[in-house]
Amino acid sequence: MSYIEIKNITKKFGDIAALEDVSITLEKNKIYGLLGRNGAGKTTLLNLITNKIFPTEGEILVDGDNVIENDKPLSKIYYMTEKNFYPDSMTVKSAFRWGKEFYPDFDINYAEALSEKFLLKTNKKIKSLSTGYKSIFKIIISLSCNAPVILLDEPVLGLDANHRDLFYKELIQSYSENPRTIIISTHLIEEAADIIENAIVLKNGKIIMNDSVESILSKGFCVSGGAAAVDKFIAGKNVLGTDVLGGLKTAYLMEKLDQNSVPEGLEISKLDLQKLFIYMTNS
Amino acid sequence: MSYIEIKNITKKFGDIAALEDVSITLEKNKIYGLLGRNGAGKTTLLNLITNKIFPTEGEILVDGDNVIENDKPLSKIYYMTEKNFYPDSMTVKSAFRWGKEFYPDFDINYAEALSEKFLLKTNKKIKSLSTGYKSIFKIIISLSCNAPVILLDEPVLGLDANHRDLFYKELIQSYSENPRTIIISTHLIEEAADIIENAIVLKNGKIIMNDSVESILSKGFCVSGGAAAVDKFIAGKNVLGTDVLGGLKTAYLMEKLDQNSVPEGLEISKLDLQKLFIYMTNS
Repeated sequence: MSYIEIKNITKKFGDIAALEDVSITLEKNKIYGLLGRNGAGKTTLLNLITNKIFPTEGEILVDGDNVIENDKPLSKIYYMTEKNFYPDSMTVKSAFRWGKEFYPDFDINYAEALSEKFLLKTNKKIKSLSTGYKSIFKIIISLSCNAPVILLDEPVLGLDANHRDLFYKELIQSYSENPRTIIISTHLIEEAADIIENAIVLKNGKIIMNDSVESILSKGFCVSGGAAAVDKFIAGKNVLGTDVLGGLKTAYLMEKLDQNSVPEGLEISKLDLQKLFIYMTNS
Repeated sequence: MSYIEIKNITKKFGDIAALEDVSITLEKNKIYGLLGRNGAGKTTLLNLITNKIFPTEGEILVDGDNVIENDKPLSKIYYMTEKNFYPDSMTVKSAFRWGKEFYPDFDINYAEALSEKFLLKTNKKIKSLSTGYKSIFKIIISLSCNAPVILLDEPVLGLDANHRDLFYKELIQSYSENPRTIIISTHLIEEAADIIENAIVLKNGKIIMNDSVESILSKGFCVSGGAAAVDKFIAGKNVLGTDVLGGLKTAYLMEKLDQNSVPEGLEISKLDLQKLFIYMTNS
């Protein structure tokens, strides 16, 4: 069931098109990865969905309603941005109470339980938090507000590996108990590959891929081994790219694997979403 | 051959010990990963090696010389920090020229070639660069200065996946042509696992692991499959941690694998440095 409809969106800043004729339909209660290089147009798209900026052309509907200056669809969305909009003197605890004002379903008990798990001190001022803890504070608000749509822009910025792991687990747990439509924009693609169902890839303001991660990864494979043997095997095949380390070579192929055609000594492995992304979006 | 000797270093800030009796010997021309959670003491250690701060106890030698207020060992080190020490009006191009003043072996041609690969505009002011390009600028200085020791503190902060990939490749290329002692402190452990030879793990100011990545990863394995079958298999074994996704379970074990003991239906895979790190450093 389509929940967010992005119809022929173009957004120009001066003469430069940040997005060009982008159309995507997002289903209710799915987790999407919004992937793209720095400057590909990801944040512009999120800003358009939340009506922080206006499109040059096209329209965006959330649950059937146009988002332009319209509280009904906008109240259904929580947008975690890189920016901080809280007053300087506000503490984490008081931000939770304000969350309840804006989002009637905000779950303060859950926010406090998450704060304990992440060791976030709720009596601290938000502006005094480190980069990692600012992200954690915003992650907690996102998961606790119970908005039907959550947009997360670089949610794991500054988090150490343990906190990223905890975030992914809590997101999946929270989503399984209370499914929502979630869009995650991130540069840590391989880590996110485990939690996103669909990947939307932007390149220079255009959608170049929009499919389930499972389907994307099933369309190709990797082959590793001695450079000469790999070169022989991949000749004439659809090669996305290769990595060489000493005499060892790994090639990334976008085509169906014929197991019987693989010579002894070559190792076949699954495609890796991040590597695939890198080769698709390199200029 | 030992090149950097860290001997019984303790560093207190007030009553709090950021580092406690840390001793490590770093060999010449090896790549080390300095791993630890936020607040574990990584940056404190790098600041001590470069004499930006003084130890409470212990001493640090570089190529036999104590680093305390001593230009000889300090001139052998380039330290890429999160901070920016360049004047506001300085451009990238002029910073390269200054690099040559401080580091006689600074390779301006290489710095310019790298700038082209990363699409860094060298006529831009350093302070006007985005977070990602500030990191790229500092990466380029680090690789071009040809100091015998390079310390990199979170070098990939803000970089997209393509630029991280390019950085790892250029680092390996540069290192293979001109071996140096390199210490990389990073939260992106799984990506760094391919380029670091030795991992030094700090937890609460103490070294809890210091070994080659190959040796660390050979000491354990992962097992995945149906939760009940995995639970039966791991009973009584040295389990670092487990992940559950639906009915599937993955367990991380720190012990020798007996291939014959693995029942049908369970999948064995190699240990993953980041997961291992997470389970070792969780509180």
